[in-house]
Amino acid sequence: MKIDFWFEFGSTYSYPAAMRVEKLASNHGIGVNWRPFLLGAVFRAQGLADSPFNLYAAKGEYMWHDLERTCKALGIPFQRPSEFPRNGLLAARVACCFDDAPWVGKFVRAVYRANFVVDTDIADPIVISSCIAGAGKDPDAVLEQAQSPESKQKLREQTDEAMRIGIFGAPTIIVGDEMFWGNDRLEDALAWAKS
Amino acid sequence: MKIDFWFEFGSTYSYPAAMRVEKLASNHGIGVNWRPFLLGAVFRAQGLADSPFNLYAAKGEYMWHDLERTCKALGIPFQRPSEFPRNGLLAARVACCFDDAPWVGKFVRAVYRANFVVDTDIADPIVISSCIAGAGKDPDAVLEQAQSPESKQKLREQTDEAMRIGIFGAPTIIVGDEMFWGNDRLEDALAWAKS
Repeated sequence: MKIDFWFEFGSTYSYPAAMRVEKLASNHGIGVNWRPFLLGAVFRAQGLADSPFNLYAAKGEYMWHDLERTCKALGIPFQRPSEFPRNGLLAARVACCFDDAPWVGKFVRAVYRANFVVDTDIADPIVISSCIAGAGKDPDAVLEQAQSPESKQKLREQTDEAMRIGIFGAPTIIVGDEMFWGNDRLEDALAWAKS
Repeated sequence: MKIDFWFEFGSTYSYPAAMRVEKLASNHGIGVNWRPFLLGAVFRAQGLADSPFNLYAAKGEYMWHDLERTCKALGIPFQRPSEFPRNGLLAARVACCFDDAPWVGKFVRAVYRANFVVDTDIADPIVISSCIAGAGKDPDAVLEQAQSPESKQKLREQTDEAMRIGIFGAPTIIVGDEMFWGNDRLEDALAWAKS
């Protein structure tokens, strides 16, 4: 049994979910398909020029407070990034290109920590290189393969697939035909997968 | 100890929260201040001409499925209304005017059942009259007082207050200075109130 974990590296509530999903799923004997996509493209297709958290100030202000409170309750470190949303394109290309590699979860979590704990720019290849190195791989070789035309196309198609199956935000967990949106629904998704 | 329960009669996730809040709070020795407001006015102030669930089709489709799933898990009956969002103005005037009456919770739940179980139009005074009667009060006397200039003004001011304190959606639970948005956060809000 595997669940599809759809996520965006710039997305705030994707952060606590991405940090937790592999271990929680593994506790239930469930595997994780890492499915990065570009949430900005999904928003643009909905007619949104920016994250709703930036477009709607009151909603954004609540989100930052709620995210801090949520991470504290989960025992996950958190520091509000000085830039939001950060551009997760390069990180998504790496995670998409190597989505079945055994080190992808470790890489994903390193990128989220870079964004939401260390407050560094995940669009910077130097930051992503250090995340790749932290996952035990050679940054130059990984980055070269992740930026090939085939890899770029794979991420484009995965983002199109997200929209085709009705994904409108991140994180979204798909279990069979059932969709669960948000860090709040991670436990529900795993319970569904077990049932 | 009392919590402020801010809600809108047309709002979908306000439904399961409104059905549960009084009993759950009472289990913890906590009281409920019923704070109806007009979510449509809040949306318009954000530049939204309709509910985000109507403006963003994929988000709306997910919401209806998730709401049905949520109500089922909570053992709350649910039938998707044939019209959304319904106009909750008259019901909100009643609940606002009589917000400290001992029967207001019973009235609130009757209106939500009319909308989300029986699929009747809660803008219709006949429907609201039957909800008032179900709460044990005289519909004509209640409706006359609820539609006085003072009562209309009280609801306007309460909606302004919602925006002033940063409310952007419903339900929203305020515990002291802490805000919790959504049916998902009801238990967290009560735990906060207890702490």
